[in-house]
Amino acid sequence: MQGQVGTEQILFTRGVPALEALPNRLISECLQAVLEGPDGKNILQYGHNSGYLPLRQLLAEQYQVSPDQILVGNGSLHLQDLLSALLIQPGDVVFVEQPSYDRAIKTFRRRGATVIGIPLEHDGVNLAVLEQALAKQTPAFMYVIPDFQNPAGVTTSIAKRQALTDLATQHNFWLIEDVPYRTLRYTGTPLPLLRDLNTTRTITVSSYSKLISPALRVGYLIGPTDFVKRLSKLAEDTILAPVLPTQAAVVAFHRRGYFASNLENLKQLYAPRLKSIVSALKTSLPDISFAEPEGGFFVSITVSQEKVGNTLLARAREQSLFLTDGRDFFADPIDGSDSSHLGANFIRLPFCALTPAQIEEGVRRLAQLVQ
Amino acid sequence: MQGQVGTEQILFTRGVPALEALPNRLISECLQAVLEGPDGKNILQYGHNSGYLPLRQLLAEQYQVSPDQILVGNGSLHLQDLLSALLIQPGDVVFVEQPSYDRAIKTFRRRGATVIGIPLEHDGVNLAVLEQALAKQTPAFMYVIPDFQNPAGVTTSIAKRQALTDLATQHNFWLIEDVPYRTLRYTGTPLPLLRDLNTTRTITVSSYSKLISPALRVGYLIGPTDFVKRLSKLAEDTILAPVLPTQAAVVAFHRRGYFASNLENLKQLYAPRLKSIVSALKTSLPDISFAEPEGGFFVSITVSQEKVGNTLLARAREQSLFLTDGRDFFADPIDGSDSSHLGANFIRLPFCALTPAQIEEGVRRLAQLVQ
Repeated sequence: MQGQVGTEQILFTRGVPALEALPNRLISECLQAVLEGPDGKNILQYGHNSGYLPLRQLLAEQYQVSPDQILVGNGSLHLQDLLSALLIQPGDVVFVEQPSYDRAIKTFRRRGATVIGIPLEHDGVNLAVLEQALAKQTPAFMYVIPDFQNPAGVTTSIAKRQALTDLATQHNFWLIEDVPYRTLRYTGTPLPLLRDLNTTRTITVSSYSKLISPALRVGYLIGPTDFVKRLSKLAEDTILAPVLPTQAAVVAFHRRGYFASNLENLKQLYAPRLKSIVSALKTSLPDISFAEPEGGFFVSITVSQEKVGNTLLARAREQSLFLTDGRDFFADPIDGSDSSHLGANFIRLPFCALTPAQIEEGVRRLAQLVQ
Repeated sequence: MQGQVGTEQILFTRGVPALEALPNRLISECLQAVLEGPDGKNILQYGHNSGYLPLRQLLAEQYQVSPDQILVGNGSLHLQDLLSALLIQPGDVVFVEQPSYDRAIKTFRRRGATVIGIPLEHDGVNLAVLEQALAKQTPAFMYVIPDFQNPAGVTTSIAKRQALTDLATQHNFWLIEDVPYRTLRYTGTPLPLLRDLNTTRTITVSSYSKLISPALRVGYLIGPTDFVKRLSKLAEDTILAPVLPTQAAVVAFHRRGYFASNLENLKQLYAPRLKSIVSALKTSLPDISFAEPEGGFFVSITVSQEKVGNTLLARAREQSLFLTDGRDFFADPIDGSDSSHLGANFIRLPFCALTPAQIEEGVRRLAQLVQ
């Protein structure tokens, strides 16, 4: 089969979990337990409009907040849509890291904001540019993914976390921290959440998509009580209540110890894949520097513009190598200049759903195209 | 215990299924089957953004449309929110039956529409008033619940169905028909769907909330392919994908024959409750005429304004009788007059979650308050 490696399709496209990492049997067991358990009727009935209360209680304990500070919904993207509806007024701007999560940029724009990207360095956003942007205008909020950022793989340093939270207080804007990858740390030590540094101006969003399963669509948001109350009202008006049996299953998944064991399995599976991609990039593209993540789903590189042109994706496809258009991850630049070409030379490399052999082969093909 | 009947709380508030009607064991079995079955990995992974394809295929067969005409989401309220986002432009009006489903009215308003109520008679809306309203302006859409309407219990006659669909073509507006109760017919014969009379201008919305379980939040929408394509794109941008394991369980629920047997159980449970409330109303409030439904969740009455004042809900509560504020179901009247008092004498009576004894006692208490 060795001869076929060159034509095998390699997908560096979406940041999806490895199929083999999805714990079907355990989820099935948990669903069965909750549906046939003492609260079974309630998880099929109307109610729990802010999310299944035992899950809110579990998260409250974990984050050391009150359950009133937690809203659980059908995935975190919808929570971002709802908070955008609440926080964005006509004419508002929203700041994001540049690059940032493409669907978040789209959501903020759809809800009426001008989305401005603050350049992301290997340790977090460029603070000088952020201060320059803040001197011009205060955003409705700034959206950041401080741990193992999507798409760049960057983790914001403790110094920059402190600076961000100080600036949020000083300029009076919300910090939305999106932390779905945070728990997937393969090496090193966790840095504090932004909310650990500033509880009054931080809204934390996360989900179980990367930790249990994406299609459970269990996402949650933590914020100040008043804010969460208003957002929960909007959520109820919009969807009535989220899907409950799956949320109850997540509680059982925790209580039975499966969350811990499953997380360990994920780390065992993904850590070697991260190692593979870092080592493959260093070997095949020795001149390109990139942020080396200690966890998460992504590594990214920025390649020479001349080598890329408008044809990189098409040329890659010819090699059975599938890439995402880097431009999707770029918002408007701070100087208001044309953003349409930004990111054409940015390449996101999600590694979790590929084997080390696929990763090496994929990076080998990529290197031939960009250097 | 007979002595306590007078103080037992009786809730004529929300239209919820009876707890004893929720098929926990069957849903549990279906979830287990699909999670441990051949498509198990896919229903935990990203994908199926328009809803689980086998469910769309099943519905397509049932409604004799193409799967491309179907979007399955997390409950029908969210689908109504999304279609409102797509169809309502600033300055638009939306027509509803007067009274109508309170959350739908709220949704259309939140998405920017002026919502105008066309008086509902015992066989559907007043067509003369509708034509008068159409002479003034064309709505973005008209929202109707043709079968066993929420809150009134009215079923639109075949003649009025034909008239509505003719007017939609003639004036070029969308008809949104919401049919979650339609299948719960206890007597009589079904009338055609509006879409059976007019496929090009009708969007059909429905859900499994009343037929299997509300907290599964499996709702769906059927419309012309182009419209559904645009709406599916917006849905993907908003929530990425709906929760999948529960949708897969609904497919299994059908395939194993449980949908049919469960529906039969629901009818067996609810039909006597409908009989009880109709008979109790005729006995206790013989002077009040009301639409006698042949299915669904609701009967409603309109009582004398003088007997009600602003105190009915409070006086009812003193008798441990809980009612919903009728004003919630009323939109703006066609003449633009003050709507704030409309519906104060309208009483919705959901009967499915009450036993015949509770229904009789509740109506007895109600009669003492309003006559």
